[in-house]
Amino acid sequence: MNQRMYELGSKRSVIRELFEFGKQRAREVGAENVYDFSLGNPSVNPPQVVEDTLISLLQTENPTELHGYTSAQGDYSVRKAIADYIHAAHGVPSDPDYIYMTCGAAASLTITLSAICNAGDEVITFRPYFTEYKVFAETAGAKLTALPSDPETFQIDIDVLEKAIGERTAAVLINSPNNPSGVVYGEETIQKLAELLREKSRAFKKTIYLVTDEPYRELVYGTVKVPYLTKYYRDTVVCYSYSKSLSLPGERIGYIFVNPSADRAKELYLSVCGAGRALGYVCAPSLFQKLIARCQGISSDISVYEGNRDLLAGALREYGFECVQPDGAFYLFVKAPEKDADAFCERAKKYNLLLVSGDGFGCEGYVRIAYCVSRDMIRRSLPAFRKLAEECGL
Amino acid sequence: MNQRMYELGSKRSVIRELFEFGKQRAREVGAENVYDFSLGNPSVNPPQVVEDTLISLLQTENPTELHGYTSAQGDYSVRKAIADYIHAAHGVPSDPDYIYMTCGAAASLTITLSAICNAGDEVITFRPYFTEYKVFAETAGAKLTALPSDPETFQIDIDVLEKAIGERTAAVLINSPNNPSGVVYGEETIQKLAELLREKSRAFKKTIYLVTDEPYRELVYGTVKVPYLTKYYRDTVVCYSYSKSLSLPGERIGYIFVNPSADRAKELYLSVCGAGRALGYVCAPSLFQKLIARCQGISSDISVYEGNRDLLAGALREYGFECVQPDGAFYLFVKAPEKDADAFCERAKKYNLLLVSGDGFGCEGYVRIAYCVSRDMIRRSLPAFRKLAEECGL
Repeated sequence: MNQRMYELGSKRSVIRELFEFGKQRAREVGAENVYDFSLGNPSVNPPQVVEDTLISLLQTENPTELHGYTSAQGDYSVRKAIADYIHAAHGVPSDPDYIYMTCGAAASLTITLSAICNAGDEVITFRPYFTEYKVFAETAGAKLTALPSDPETFQIDIDVLEKAIGERTAAVLINSPNNPSGVVYGEETIQKLAELLREKSRAFKKTIYLVTDEPYRELVYGTVKVPYLTKYYRDTVVCYSYSKSLSLPGERIGYIFVNPSADRAKELYLSVCGAGRALGYVCAPSLFQKLIARCQGISSDISVYEGNRDLLAGALREYGFECVQPDGAFYLFVKAPEKDADAFCERAKKYNLLLVSGDGFGCEGYVRIAYCVSRDMIRRSLPAFRKLAEECGL
Repeated sequence: MNQRMYELGSKRSVIRELFEFGKQRAREVGAENVYDFSLGNPSVNPPQVVEDTLISLLQTENPTELHGYTSAQGDYSVRKAIADYIHAAHGVPSDPDYIYMTCGAAASLTITLSAICNAGDEVITFRPYFTEYKVFAETAGAKLTALPSDPETFQIDIDVLEKAIGERTAAVLINSPNNPSGVVYGEETIQKLAELLREKSRAFKKTIYLVTDEPYRELVYGTVKVPYLTKYYRDTVVCYSYSKSLSLPGERIGYIFVNPSADRAKELYLSVCGAGRALGYVCAPSLFQKLIARCQGISSDISVYEGNRDLLAGALREYGFECVQPDGAFYLFVKAPEKDADAFCERAKKYNLLLVSGDGFGCEGYVRIAYCVSRDMIRRSLPAFRKLAEECGL
């Protein structure tokens, strides 16, 4: 039996543990008195057009075609709709023959890194980062290096990156809006990042690819803009998922977009196709591919999350907690008022508050609070947060 | 860029080439005069209950739950329904906690082999075999060894297997009903196979797992029975897919069932969970999981394929072709009347007959004819087959 796979399967995740704890507490004190902020599962319904389109496809399309194999890279008309949308929405060149439909973001990233990396390569990302990045990089035979970010803003620290890039750096992986910090990388950051990657690519006489994990692209608040990366850096691969924007996380639908003008773009795209094949993906689920083609530019009602953020961040600050203002995604990354974030999460459990320690995201002394929950639960949880703050002497 | 992935992505498959050729010929001579027997894409509609259940789920279930993440191994109620069905249909012990929902058969096999194998291990299968097995084994770090079968019946040659099993043999992979031969392994074959694997496991002081790829289990004709493997060999992992039985190949839904009494079954199951995670699978598509729970024991109208088989096999024999009678699946594996099967396929193209050379399935001198097509197309194709036979001097 394979030891790596056994370890990946048997280490119960912190979030899973919290889930089980929450279920038990719900039995003891009632579900309405347990405040689970641990899961990044959208709480807003998919837009009505999603259900309507699914039903219409089922009622009107030929079933063997609707549910049949699509080509491995995805149905052409679906890729065409996405390419057209990318061009229209972001004003960048796009091409259906550089889009590869996937079973969601985890598949997009595993396939992309497997296409880019060789054994012994390095993938660089920034703390805090989504825990599974390590798994994705290691499947690709690479090592994940997670660099510290600016401790005040969680923006990329370009000087730190400058020193870290080496000849085995195959890719830099970014996630903006970020899970777990909610931070969005602004245009200036992206410009500096692109300039540095160009410089290092020249210096090492190779191409360092920029891989951008974008499940939260649509989840931004106020006037915040998320720069479209192919505009700034040629050698970019966009990994997108509809899990969060259309509230379809269980359906596993997303795509990889290789910038058509990237270095050896055609070979990279073919390597993406090969990696998908090697990892056992035959095609992305066909019904949801066809749905996606009809839902370009549509999102769930994001304003609900913005209201949640304002209510919760406002209250927590009032109680004395510190956190960076999240511009996007649906997480608050809050400074734990004691050094040991795990101990703080244990303390929170006494008040039936289920928070995730930031240690797993590579950032000690923080907790992640997912606010993709009902407004009502947030309101009910506030007295518990207040008591927790008092116990911590805030 | 990764060389293995590039090669897997850039080698155009024979079937893909045929598909393009067929499209071109259709433009030249009319689609009704091109006879494409190359694809294993079900031609029978999914049963009506599939469409009805999907619509009912969409109309009645809470959308955020319906489309939300399930646990990584699959929704519990879905796994329970499958475990209950396995027990009821096959009279074997079963358990939802040993079932892992997957994105179809290719995912099931890649995950299972990755869970079982270590670098340098060997997976044994039997010719003819589904081409992608080599890719799945190599992703798991193993080498695929494809042994010749009995040349008359395409049953397993136990003596050949006996000599081939070595200390690096981690798994034996079988596929019955077989793609491309349509052959079903009878109870006697399975008993001999199980006995040999027990003996070799003892001799090498290790467990040799039996992995069974069963997308065609439900597609058998007449009174033929497909033995359920866990009854005969304890250390069995069943890889199942609903692609063919419910005509849902594009939706990517299947499962892995680790026999609960297998050696270190719990560890193996956890390794399966870990391999799924490592390969980028988060959960199987949630809507189709929930569909599956309500469609246990239901199949598309298989009698259509049986009628196709009888019509086509009968006619081809009448014209002088030789083939083993297929008891299941929807393929005829026909002896090419000339030594070079590729040359024969080229010859067939002159008559607008699109057949797949058996060389890719590890069996030289044969062609695969997929009869999951419309009855009408088979009828229209018969004069072309007759002319082809005449040209070959049959």
